[in-house]
This record gives sequence, structure tokens and C-alpha cells, in this order.
Amino acid sequence: MTEKTFIVDHEKLKIFCTKLLEKVNIPREDAEITAETLVWADLRGVHSHGCIRLPVYIERILREEINVHPEIKLCRNMGATALLDGDNGLGQVIATRAMNIATDLSRDHGASWVGVRGSNHFGTNAYYAAMALPKDMIGIVFTVSNLNTMAPWGSIDVLLGNNPIAFTIPAHKEYPVVFDAALSVAAKAKLLMAAEIGEKTIPSGWAFNKEGLPTIDVQEGINGILTPIGNYKGTGLAFVISLLCGALLGAAFGNTVRDTNVGHLFCAIDIKAFEDPVVFKKRVDYAIREIKAARRVPPEESEVLMPGERGYILQQYQLSNGIPLLRKIVENLNVTAQRIGSDAKL
Amino acid sequence: MTEKTFIVDHEKLKIFCTKLLEKVNIPREDAEITAETLVWADLRGVHSHGCIRLPVYIERILREEINVHPEIKLCRNMGATALLDGDNGLGQVIATRAMNIATDLSRDHGASWVGVRGSNHFGTNAYYAAMALPKDMIGIVFTVSNLNTMAPWGSIDVLLGNNPIAFTIPAHKEYPVVFDAALSVAAKAKLLMAAEIGEKTIPSGWAFNKEGLPTIDVQEGINGILTPIGNYKGTGLAFVISLLCGALLGAAFGNTVRDTNVGHLFCAIDIKAFEDPVVFKKRVDYAIREIKAARRVPPEESEVLMPGERGYILQQYQLSNGIPLLRKIVENLNVTAQRIGSDAKL
Repeated sequence: MTEKTFIVDHEKLKIFCTKLLEKVNIPREDAEITAETLVWADLRGVHSHGCIRLPVYIERILREEINVHPEIKLCRNMGATALLDGDNGLGQVIATRAMNIATDLSRDHGASWVGVRGSNHFGTNAYYAAMALPKDMIGIVFTVSNLNTMAPWGSIDVLLGNNPIAFTIPAHKEYPVVFDAALSVAAKAKLLMAAEIGEKTIPSGWAFNKEGLPTIDVQEGINGILTPIGNYKGTGLAFVISLLCGALLGAAFGNTVRDTNVGHLFCAIDIKAFEDPVVFKKRVDYAIREIKAARRVPPEESEVLMPGERGYILQQYQLSNGIPLLRKIVENLNVTAQRIGSDAKL
Repeated sequence: MTEKTFIVDHEKLKIFCTKLLEKVNIPREDAEITAETLVWADLRGVHSHGCIRLPVYIERILREEINVHPEIKLCRNMGATALLDGDNGLGQVIATRAMNIATDLSRDHGASWVGVRGSNHFGTNAYYAAMALPKDMIGIVFTVSNLNTMAPWGSIDVLLGNNPIAFTIPAHKEYPVVFDAALSVAAKAKLLMAAEIGEKTIPSGWAFNKEGLPTIDVQEGINGILTPIGNYKGTGLAFVISLLCGALLGAAFGNTVRDTNVGHLFCAIDIKAFEDPVVFKKRVDYAIREIKAARRVPPEESEVLMPGERGYILQQYQLSNGIPLLRKIVENLNVTAQRIGSDAKL
């Protein structure tokens, strides 16, 4: 704990988030689901998708931009596929429902794809993809961002989100593989955080200014264009994801992207459709150990990290030792509680 | 046509490739399938995966490293999934079979995943993914490379291929979206081609030397490590693909990667499982036109290209006007023909 941080127990944080959501008329079960996903992100160090988002959600609920009693509807169902309309509910509630349907369908059909339209920001892709892990399944989650931050390669019009993709794969004794990446080199949240703590510059290669020129000025970057991974490869893939999660599902894509009608796509692959799960998971262990034993780039001798490894270790530690949150975030959460007349306090 | 190139009609090239494959005992139908995929790559300008590969395939067939009469076997089938053992046949033959099964399964179940082990190099992912397009389906193809070229981020041991991923999406009146990207910034073939034409340097950001330091020396790059897209994101995703196509399917992954037991994963999503195909394809047109109309990065005013657009335009042009192949490649193909006693000649 530093002057700037405040240690919060994860259970306490979950109860706090649940209470605030209930106070703005989210049903208990839905509030708990949402709180669970936010705290999961904080536990894994992904604070940009943790409880920092709660005041924004509550603000949108108060403005009646989010439906607190959505009737999530099954629009289409073709064996191994399903399409849900989220009725503008909280993204977390809709996404949890969708991934549960995906794993149910995969149990019967070996694999499945479940699409969702009419959703909202749902936090972190990895949470839903990871729901497949205890069922001995592989989880895949694609989503359209609720904000466009990238321009198609060669252009300066911000028409694409950094549309994150997640893949989760269970291991036997090693940590599960939890890959979750936005398709920009750096997330917008990283630029905002740099500005927040008073940095004037960002690393070269993170952003272009509005005119499409590379910039290291933090404000120019925030007002500009995020750099896609692999240049045209990153925006090409972001475009594909926008068609899959937006155009295919009847959700927002291109210049219609904003906070509402967010689309997500969930896939579960039952391992036993291809291999005995224990055999497979032992192979995953083998692959992980091979890489962990690899020679490192000198002179740093820094560890080679597997996708999700840092988050997993942090999660285990913080489950026992609490989550260090920036005081500013904690204050903002407490102010939000007061504002809506809740007696909850961190 | 320059001094260095030679224009070949695509039908002539297809017949030539078919004849050579038949000469080394590949059955006519399989030879035609393989020739078709190679010429498709050349037509689209992806010469690294075109008929330049044929002498290598023939060499491997002569060494009995590829089974000319494979019994492709269905090992598992769970409704929307199937696992094939390719019995060490030509990758193109096995992959075509697998993608046909994937689109068949999707017709019944809405979506499907078909895995393949015991395969060989299959050319370009996009070809198989594009097989979904005329069926109003979305195609997805992942493969493990047959050569490791990248090191897990932070390491200097080359334990990962640049494992390409392809997504194809049909449009209504616009060109279909054909996204096919290796997970390295530049393909190894680009470095080899640079060396071939006598270049001493490569662009900064393409490769590291064996010690893990950035290099612009073409030979150091060839003997070194390719840069992944998005740094740790690229190797993280390459690792995921290696587990999906290798560990899950019983194919090679990690340090066992070589020319044999290559694994691929094919997915088809039937559009009508989620949306009326015409409605969807019109939305794709809209998304494409929106991007084509975007403001361009000054001062170049170069066109903003959609994934697969350049290949599509080139294909249309070269179908009528022939394919310019490097003379060196043509000579090598003719020498190969002579060597195996074929009277075919380009």
C-alpha cells in the first residue's frame, strides 16, 4: 500500500458493488453477477475493466440508458448456435447468460457459437471465456468495443474499435491459458492513465495524432488514433470482429458504434470432442513448461510470461491479501454511493 | 513482364502442376485439388504459397515423406465437430476434405469446428476459409506453421510458428472480406525474398537476431527470430493457435513442429443461423463502403485496402492476363519436371 492506494478485501468490494447496483434497481442476482466480474478484473490487475467502471454504469442506469429489468430473448437457435437479444441490459448479465448457453450447447454438439446483440459494456472478455475452463472446454470471446479508437490502416477516420479477442485453455497442473488482447498496441485506458498521473509523453508506437502522424504526446494520442497491432493486420482483424459481432448479430458496427447495442460472440469447444481432456491438459502443461524453460532475452533475464499468468498469480495473492485500489477510485466509488443514497462504504 | 518475370496462363499453370503431381503418383483428383490451391495463391499475388512450393512437395513425395494414397479417417464426430487424421497426405487434399465437412456440418448445426492432424503444408489458409463464401457461410481457418520462427516474448528460443489465421466473410456487391495473416510482422518468405534479390537490409521491426536484439541485417534476421505482431500479443496468440491446432488435435506443437503431422482447425458459421444472408451481406457492403470513403493519411493519399481486396483485384486481372512468375521459379519448375521424367513444360 502506498499513499496513493488503499487495500480493499475482494469480498468487501463485491458486496459494495452489489449494494450500489441494487440501490439503482438492479435485481440482486444480476447485481452479484456484475460485481463478480468487476472484482475478478481487479483481482487480476486489470483495473481498467474493474470497479472503476461502476460509477459509469450507475450513471447510465440513472439516465435510463441501461435497462435494469431486461427480458433477454432467444431470437434464433440452430443446434450449435444461438442468437440472444439482450434487451439493453447490463452487459455482464447478458454475457454470463450467453456463455452459459454456449457451454450447454457444446456439451451436446461438441462446439457452439452464441451471439448477442442489444448488450452494453461487459467488462473483460476473459471472464466469460474463462467460464469454459472448469467444464473442460475452450472458451473464445470476441466483442466490439463501445468506442472507436482505431482508423482503418491508411485512413485517419476513427471507424474501428480495438475489438478485444479472448481465448482460454485449461491446463492440468499449470495455470490455465487466458489470452485476452485488444487489437491496439496499447489500450486507450493506458493513455488516459498516463495523462491522469501527469505524464506528458507516451512510448513511441502507441498512437498517431488526428492527422495520422506518429505521436508521443499523451494528449495528441488521446485525441488521435491508436496504433493497431501489426499495422494493417490489426485493423483488418478489428474489421472482421466488427462484422462478426456487429453486422452479423444486428449490433452496432462502424460509425454506429457507441455505448448501446453492443454485440458479442461467444464460442465454447468441448475438449472431449477432439481429445481426452486429461491427455489434452497434460499436453498443455508440457507446452507451458517448455516455454517457461526457454532461454531469456539478455541482459534482463526477465521471466517469460504465459498468457494470463501474471493475472492468475496476482489473483491468488490478492484473494488473501486484498486489492490495492487507487485512492482516487475508492473516493469516487464512495461518492457514488452517497450520491445514490446508499450507506455502503469502502 | 520484366526480364525477371515470365507470364504464365493460369490454366496452363494448373495443368502443369497437376501433371507433375500425377507423375509422382498423386491420383488425378488430388493432384487437381492441390494444383488449384497453388495457382489460386499465385493468382492473388501470394507467390510465397503458390507453385513455388511444388518442387518442395515433389521432393518430399520422392523421399516418401508424404503419403500419396492417404486414407483420411474420421476419428471423432460430435454433431458440430469432427476430427480427421490425414494419414500424412498432401495438406491441400486433407484441408479441402475438412473444410467441406465443416460447411456440411454447419448446414445442419449452424456452425462447426473440424480439426485435422497428420497433415502437411497446405498452402494458404485463405483458400479453405474462402470455400465457405459461396455457401453463404463465414470461414475461419487456423494452422500451425511447419516451421518455428518466433520466440515466446521475452525468450530467444524459437518455439512458435507465426501460425496464420484466416477469416472470410461474404459481401453482397462488394468483394468478399478475405483476412489471412501470419502472426509475425513480416513473413519469413519476405526476408528470404529480400536476400534472394540481393538486399542487405530489412526494415526495422521485422526481426531480432539470435541473441534477441533488433536487427536490420537480412541474414541475421533469417537466422534469428521474427517479430510478432503486437509483441507479447502476437506470441500469446501464436501459442493459443499452437494448442488449438497442435495439442488439441494430436498434431505437432512446440519443439516437435516440423514438416510432418501438421494440424489445422476449420470453422464454418452459417450466416442464416444469425441473420438473413442478404441482409447481412448488405451490411457488409455498407461497412466496406464506409471505410473506402474514409479520409486517407496525408500526404500519400494511398488507397485504404480492405482485407483481401488487393488479392481479389489481382486475381480478376490475372485470370485474363496471365500470372507473372519470376523466371527463376519457372526454371525451377521446368527442371523439376525434367527430373521426374515429365514432358510438361511452362
